[in-house]
Amino acid sequence: MARTQKKPELQNAGTKASRDDKSKTTRSKTSAAKMAQPSAVAQDDTVFVALSLPEPTLNETMQAYFDKCMEKLGFVPNVLKAYAFDMKKLEAFAAMYNDLMLGPSGLSKLEREMIAVAVSSHNRCYYCLVAHGSAVRQISGDPALGELMVMNYRAARLSKRQRAMLDFAVKMTNEPWAIEDHDRDNLRRAGFSDRDIWDIAAIAGFYNMSNRVATATDMRPNSVYHAMAR
Amino acid sequence: MARTQKKPELQNAGTKASRDDKSKTTRSKTSAAKMAQPSAVAQDDTVFVALSLPEPTLNETMQAYFDKCMEKLGFVPNVLKAYAFDMKKLEAFAAMYNDLMLGPSGLSKLEREMIAVAVSSHNRCYYCLVAHGSAVRQISGDPALGELMVMNYRAARLSKRQRAMLDFAVKMTNEPWAIEDHDRDNLRRAGFSDRDIWDIAAIAGFYNMSNRVATATDMRPNSVYHAMAR
Amino acid sequence: MARTQKKPELQNAGTKASRDDKSKTTRSKTSAAKMAQPSAVAQDDTVFVALSLPEPTLNETMQAYFDKCMEKLGFVPNVLKAYAFDMKKLEAFAAMYNDLMLGPSGLSKLEREMIAVAVSSHNRCYYCLVAHGSAVRQISGDPALGELMVMNYRAARLSKRQRAMLDFAVKMTNEPWAIEDHDRDNLRRAGFSDRDIWDIAAIAGFYNMSNRVATATDMRPNSVYHAMAR
Amino acid sequence: MARTQKKPELQNAGTKASRDDKSKTTRSKTSAAKMAQPSAVAQDDTVFVALSLPEPTLNETMQAYFDKCMEKLGFVPNVLKAYAFDMKKLEAFAAMYNDLMLGPSGLSKLEREMIAVAVSSHNRCYYCLVAHGSAVRQISGDPALGELMVMNYRAARLSKRQRAMLDFAVKMTNEPWAIEDHDRDNLRRAGFSDRDIWDIAAIAGFYNMSNRVATATDMRPNSVYHAMAR
Amino acid sequence: MARTQKKPELQNAGTKASRDDKSKTTRSKTSAAKMAQPSAVAQDDTVFVALSLPEPTLNETMQAYFDKCMEKLGFVPNVLKAYAFDMKKLEAFAAMYNDLMLGPSGLSKLEREMIAVAVSSHNRCYYCLVAHGSAVRQISGDPALGELMVMNYRAARLSKRQRAMLDFAVKMTNEPWAIEDHDRDNLRRAGFSDRDIWDIAAIAGFYNMSNRVATATDMRPNSVYHAMAR
Amino acid sequence: MARTQKKPELQNAGTKASRDDKSKTTRSKTSAAKMAQPSAVAQDDTVFVALSLPEPTLNETMQAYFDKCMEKLGFVPNVLKAYAFDMKKLEAFAAMYNDLMLGPSGLSKLEREMIAVAVSSHNRCYYCLVAHGSAVRQISGDPALGELMVMNYRAARLSKRQRAMLDFAVKMTNEPWAIEDHDRDNLRRAGFSDRDIWDIAAIAGFYNMSNRVATATDMRPNSVYHAMAR
Repeated sequence: MARTQKKPELQNAGTKASRDDKSKTTRSKTSAAKMAQPSAVAQDDTVFVALSLPEPTLNETMQAYFDKCMEKLGFVPNVLKAYAFDMKKLEAFAAMYNDLMLGPSGLSKLEREMIAVAVSSHNRCYYCLVAHGSAVRQISGDPALGELMVMNYRAARLSKRQRAMLDFAVKMTNEPWAIEDHDRDNLRRAGFSDRDIWDIAAIAGFYNMSNRVATATDMRPNSVYHAMAR
Repeated sequence: MARTQKKPELQNAGTKASRDDKSKTTRSKTSAAKMAQPSAVAQDDTVFVALSLPEPTLNETMQAYFDKCMEKLGFVPNVLKAYAFDMKKLEAFAAMYNDLMLGPSGLSKLEREMIAVAVSSHNRCYYCLVAHGSAVRQISGDPALGELMVMNYRAARLSKRQRAMLDFAVKMTNEPWAIEDHDRDNLRRAGFSDRDIWDIAAIAGFYNMSNRVATATDMRPNSVYHAMAR
Repeated sequence: MARTQKKPELQNAGTKASRDDKSKTTRSKTSAAKMAQPSAVAQDDTVFVALSLPEPTLNETMQAYFDKCMEKLGFVPNVLKAYAFDMKKLEAFAAMYNDLMLGPSGLSKLEREMIAVAVSSHNRCYYCLVAHGSAVRQISGDPALGELMVMNYRAARLSKRQRAMLDFAVKMTNEPWAIEDHDRDNLRRAGFSDRDIWDIAAIAGFYNMSNRVATATDMRPNSVYHAMAR
Repeated sequence: MARTQKKPELQNAGTKASRDDKSKTTRSKTSAAKMAQPSAVAQDDTVFVALSLPEPTLNETMQAYFDKCMEKLGFVPNVLKAYAFDMKKLEAFAAMYNDLMLGPSGLSKLEREMIAVAVSSHNRCYYCLVAHGSAVRQISGDPALGELMVMNYRAARLSKRQRAMLDFAVKMTNEPWAIEDHDRDNLRRAGFSDRDIWDIAAIAGFYNMSNRVATATDMRPNSVYHAMAR
Repeated sequence: MARTQKKPELQNAGTKASRDDKSKTTRSKTSAAKMAQPSAVAQDDTVFVALSLPEPTLNETMQAYFDKCMEKLGFVPNVLKAYAFDMKKLEAFAAMYNDLMLGPSGLSKLEREMIAVAVSSHNRCYYCLVAHGSAVRQISGDPALGELMVMNYRAARLSKRQRAMLDFAVKMTNEPWAIEDHDRDNLRRAGFSDRDIWDIAAIAGFYNMSNRVATATDMRPNSVYHAMAR
Repeated sequence: MARTQKKPELQNAGTKASRDDKSKTTRSKTSAAKMAQPSAVAQDDTVFVALSLPEPTLNETMQAYFDKCMEKLGFVPNVLKAYAFDMKKLEAFAAMYNDLMLGPSGLSKLEREMIAVAVSSHNRCYYCLVAHGSAVRQISGDPALGELMVMNYRAARLSKRQRAMLDFAVKMTNEPWAIEDHDRDNLRRAGFSDRDIWDIAAIAGFYNMSNRVATATDMRPNSVYHAMAR
């Protein structure tokens, strides 16, 4: 990633007020001719956190990580750019994320993304619903499955295994104090190993963190997600 | 609408079990070759209510109404097919819906659809989120605005007027007993007339009804909505 | 209905403030001698919606409907007067109400009113609890049954059928997103047909609309309901 | 009170099942000829707690208290009969009740009953809503005021003082952990002394206890309350 | 208790502001040398209610009661000092408290204190959690059991009997309207008599009162509780 | 850490049932003579997760980390032992934890621990309340401050800064979807920089993850925490 050119994309702003001013110039460049009114998310690619954070200086490892994102996805997810003001925070976040979502596990990648979206739906997290809703659409090859996870996973016709998995993840989200042995036993009966149960708990826990960091900082998803895998 | 050909589309089923059996034959006809696994919503166009209801016999007015849907939309929304087992119910529903969403009002059609989706998001109604999320995308010409209404309207950058309108609609939905004079005054301060306030209340009320009829009967949206106006 | 005489009864007011001013003159005419302080609902028959709405002009059908109300009940329910500023809205509301509450159904009229009150109790809707609580008292011939529905239907000694019906209606009201096949199966086991389930859903849905229109507009019930069928 | 004659009135039963058996004989004596179906509360005067508790033996003071109830009210409230299985419990309850509701206070007796009903409405306590709803009707001379307290006190047109009092009592009931200095200051600004605030807190607290003892034991109000002061 | 000397300890203050002023002098006397910053609860022994209440004048019985507290505990619990502005209120509270927590019952004293803490945890009542958490530690001889009751009783490894008891008490606290026959039957199956069920209900009810009186008046526990039985 | 000796401490168990069996032998060795009944947390040091997870094999870095824990604390926190079945997970968790709680920040270490406990109190997480409640007691030198954070932070007499910080952290926890610009502005007005706001969000987010991983796996805190810094 050539940081010099990318600077505008890494820009944050303290308040919506200042964002709105800034967006006036931005809009004139980006809005398509066909649309009198710019999209509701026109600014999301340039102002993706409602906080004025230090200018990022990526270290070598993280520069390589961002380069790989560009190569594979064509863009760097805004959540990574948001964490990029501090290399320790970015590295810890990336390490945990990559282990949970891409590392070895008894859960398929689709199942992990389904947990991400069902939890984010309960917490109504705009960033995570857009980014991971897109992932569910892409991995499953089924756009409607992404919508079902975003809207109400209970309306989806799921296997017993997937339903038990999401019920546990959402109960953990909604009333963590009430999880007990019988909840874990439900997962075992649905075919999950104890090691799998750890992964369900860890992934559902992770999005309960990410959802809150995202909403607390008004993090905005890259606008490109919206049209992906429709 | 030629009912003879449409019969399969108007078919209901009492339980998911019977639905699943039925869908086996259905799938073989509709599933695209490219997709090994059928879409999560493959059956939604044929089995759209989890109740065994009487075979519909449209009267002249309602036949004309369905024909107009076919002509304008290319399909009859499943909610209308669901109500079609009884002409009195279908006519009353259609009359109320058309007056509220298409009749004269100080609220724009987009604003009415935004209320529909924000209320349905609170109630997590799959049918209404799919159908009216599509309408917001289409009318606004802004796909992301539809997603914002589905996911968390508070994350959208709205005008003061639209924000006040949705705050009122969602408070009505969440704790109707707590609406008081100061809530109505907020709307007046945001520029709404008393007549407009009635419309906001009536539309938000209507989706609190429809959301519940839809979830109580497991109503499924026409699959065509998912890809519209993306 | 002779509108000229009825005008005061159809009067609305934008705010409680203006209502209070108005009521001073009203009270001097209506308050009984025996009572120094006027009733908490003294104004409810003249100012029944907290919105300034257009002057009603009933069309022939609706005039006939209001006349029939006067003849049968001795008064026109305030909800109808509230909707009377627009004939399309009044007609659609009346059509839906009459079909659901008075049309053919596997549910008795008492059962339909019990649903109305149990739902309105959850939503704490003053208008609907007064009007339909009175209907439960009247139809059942048992004043205490009306109170039980208003206060806590779980405290009533109900048949298994009626209890299942109200549990479904209240769950639909409280967490519609969580209704699933087993909830519908509970109703089937309690003896309801699929057609009956539609009616339970439609009636519970209708009061979730009406409760919200009523509280959002501060609709007030005709004071005559309070003493009926005690 | 002559206990021998009263025994049936003091009778408890362990389960609804046994209550239902018993009621068959009871009904044949008490149900009025005009009514094919007995009232939903026909048994409430004989079986008023869903627990098998020891046979009461009133001591002299409590006998005098019950006699005074008979003389003044014409009946002994079922809550007192329920506590009568143990003189210590009955005496402590009666002492606290009489001090709070009838003792010296800056709050009028009507205001104290209004708190009782607004709290009981939040907790949906059938016993307390029936008994104290009747008290509000009687003391205020305004039947509709009783209904407003039962249904939704926010719909009543109250003085600033009474509204502040009920808002505090209901917030205490709903989220006691969130009461802070500014809540007490609201009461001071509405004209209440610190001594009055204690009384509001103590009365609201008391009904949060009574509501729960009543619902936990399925306590039933004397049927005579229903028709009082209508 | 020699009231003359005790006066400062019985002092109340209307607002935190005045309390803060007062505490400046108090602190200089009580704060230990080792601690630069005074404890967060330094004032709790002198200003224990956020209300200006009348100066207490104990009658003979209550003076004897306070003397006994001093003799047995070494201090008078602040809740008693708070009620001491009115002998009728203090006597009624003490009578009910002593009967419930110390009188004859099928529940052990530890079980009664466990109910007190589990209920107070749900209501997040600082006073009751400190005072009764200490009692659980002391009676059980197990400091960690006190913490478990304060933090989440579901995490404790309890007998079936104790778990059923606390589940009932907390359900009564959280949604009293939903307690029904099957909840009482659960207690019977866990070995409780109907007389025991009354006691569980009465104790859980009592702390639902006390929690609210304490939080509504910002009652502060004696600081000595914190270190007891650790 | 010498793993051979430590093995028993790293043991997990799949179910409470198996744990209970195991504990019988454990108890006979550990229970002090003075106590007939073993502590409610007697097993927490040996069986600290309700899942059967793979045997840990620490890599060099993590071995050094565990050794440092032993040296500094005298024990390895059970949460680290729980994560130790997989080095990637342990390293990512430790990196994030150490950065957030011990790294450079505008928040003091006490403030970070206060957030940890206030969030864990909302989520009623036994593990985190015990471990971080102990940290608040230790860092502040004020045992009562730890209790206040565990029980109800609103009852603590906090500076405006600390109160704003905890209000934000708890709102993020309770209704993350409702955090908006004015919430961030409250923090700015209380003196926090945008960089500080990130840290508040990240720490509150982190405990919303940890609380859920801990309750979902029934993680048990080292018993030594209970008596620390009292």
